[in-house]
Amino acid sequence: MHVLITGAAGMIGRKLTERLITDRSLNTQPIEKLTLIDVVPPARPAGFSDHVKTRAADLADPGVAEKAVSERPDAIFHLAGVVSGEAETDFEKGYRVNLDGTRALLDAVRKTGDGYKPKFVFSSSIAVFGAPFPDAIGDEFHLTPLTSYGTQKAICELLLADYTRRGFVEGVGIRLPSIVVRPGKPNKAASGFFSGIIREPLAGQEAVLPVEDSVLHWHASPRSAVGFLTHAAGLSRAKLGDRVNLTMPGVCCTVGEQIAALRRIAGDKVAARIKRAPDELVSRIVAGWPSRFDARRAAELGFTVENSFDDIIRAHIEDELGGKIA
Amino acid sequence: MHVLITGAAGMIGRKLTERLITDRSLNTQPIEKLTLIDVVPPARPAGFSDHVKTRAADLADPGVAEKAVSERPDAIFHLAGVVSGEAETDFEKGYRVNLDGTRALLDAVRKTGDGYKPKFVFSSSIAVFGAPFPDAIGDEFHLTPLTSYGTQKAICELLLADYTRRGFVEGVGIRLPSIVVRPGKPNKAASGFFSGIIREPLAGQEAVLPVEDSVLHWHASPRSAVGFLTHAAGLSRAKLGDRVNLTMPGVCCTVGEQIAALRRIAGDKVAARIKRAPDELVSRIVAGWPSRFDARRAAELGFTVENSFDDIIRAHIEDELGGKIA
Repeated sequence: MHVLITGAAGMIGRKLTERLITDRSLNTQPIEKLTLIDVVPPARPAGFSDHVKTRAADLADPGVAEKAVSERPDAIFHLAGVVSGEAETDFEKGYRVNLDGTRALLDAVRKTGDGYKPKFVFSSSIAVFGAPFPDAIGDEFHLTPLTSYGTQKAICELLLADYTRRGFVEGVGIRLPSIVVRPGKPNKAASGFFSGIIREPLAGQEAVLPVEDSVLHWHASPRSAVGFLTHAAGLSRAKLGDRVNLTMPGVCCTVGEQIAALRRIAGDKVAARIKRAPDELVSRIVAGWPSRFDARRAAELGFTVENSFDDIIRAHIEDELGGKIA
Repeated sequence: MHVLITGAAGMIGRKLTERLITDRSLNTQPIEKLTLIDVVPPARPAGFSDHVKTRAADLADPGVAEKAVSERPDAIFHLAGVVSGEAETDFEKGYRVNLDGTRALLDAVRKTGDGYKPKFVFSSSIAVFGAPFPDAIGDEFHLTPLTSYGTQKAICELLLADYTRRGFVEGVGIRLPSIVVRPGKPNKAASGFFSGIIREPLAGQEAVLPVEDSVLHWHASPRSAVGFLTHAAGLSRAKLGDRVNLTMPGVCCTVGEQIAALRRIAGDKVAARIKRAPDELVSRIVAGWPSRFDARRAAELGFTVENSFDDIIRAHIEDELGGKIA
């Protein structure tokens, strides 16, 4: 089969690419060809390179989406998008990339016609939800995003469901939890500390914690995120029904519980590298985010996640640190 | 104040125009100017005509939305749209008119800048909801439309909320029940028969009923619809909060109860003019529609509707038939 990944140069795109190249298959179907698209040139993976095409392009530009699907990929992982902070500060860019880019891709598939109906996995986000929340957000809770990013994701979910219902694609939208521990350098995202307080201490560096220990959040590892994507690609329309957008399972824990898990796994010395520096703005932003879900449908459909935050830390140590702690 | 109505040639647009011209005010603020836009030329109202501008134009065409807001109307009633049946049969037209037209209008307001922030009342629909439903749909039930029309309305609600949150407009989206009894000729809406089975018999004509008597639905009169719109225009952002899209109150009854009400008011001879002719497409579309709501927020915010379907029929006889039954 031919697999297309948009946003392939991003963290999850790279990990998904690695996984597909290691497996050489997607849900038991052999992969003959992989197309990687991103606005920055995606890296050529080490293996399988005769079968991989990479391209730097913006799906919202004229003709790009049409070209992306011209070879009729069997499965499309649409991960491309501007992140929440940028969608909030650059209103037009957020709508252009996150909404118009997605719609262009869906329309390019639709206009291909001739029986073409690829599996279309869309990475949505729990940012489609906005406070106030019930204790646990169920599968039928309404989407009232409080960011432009969340709005764009919610709109794309609606498009995906309609294009699926009309028979143009086989869509699945998956609302990702916060993905921790993100590898790489610290960033200025308000949510960055959820990864930073684990990643930096494990690498022998100090990390800043800007919120109270009592802050509750919804997490999954990068490894789980890749698992969600590949599992979604294997779900049949018959199993999914009309409601093709799903909240993914996650590990719900407080910042205090994150730190306790780090201490259990890496010891007091490592945990002591977290420095508390309360930040009112970050605290206020985080307070508006959803923290706990009852992701029943995803569980029934076979999506799985780590059992504890300890497991999320272990996944990071295995996948990013070669099993070693500094 | 200056009021702009889009879709002004439609049934609700005409009734809203009549009401504003009769009152010469909107929520106690005097109206100095009224602009009426539609794809077909809106009729010039009899009175107040020195202060009324009419224009035939399509908001999705380049420059039309910008021109529509160039005189900075204080209140915009955005009623323009393709109806559900047409949005389902003509996919591209539905998205162009219902989504792109609305977005163009919102963007024209946004780009005006310079402190311009009109009240923006958007006529949404209960078609944003899709089966399966709970017994009564509450204010926090998710939007999973099963038509392209419902999808387009749901997307516009999300845009309206985000543009309001960002401070570009003072938006209110109101999800209208099925408006019955619609005066005039049948239109292309799949819901047309809900009006037809009352309107035609009262006018001495036969009406076709394409669904089962057990079909349950959510109704309000044209008079109530106009009341919803003007009331919405008077709501403050402080009262509304972030969740600016509201399900309107309605009268919940079955087709059988509609017919019983007609019989009570107009007699057996009139009710006998309804002919049953089951239509599979219409039945399927209607089966996916919601039927009963718990529209608590709207009630708390002061929206009101008829108490019974009998009252809805009486409103039609008073407003459209001069009190007379054929």
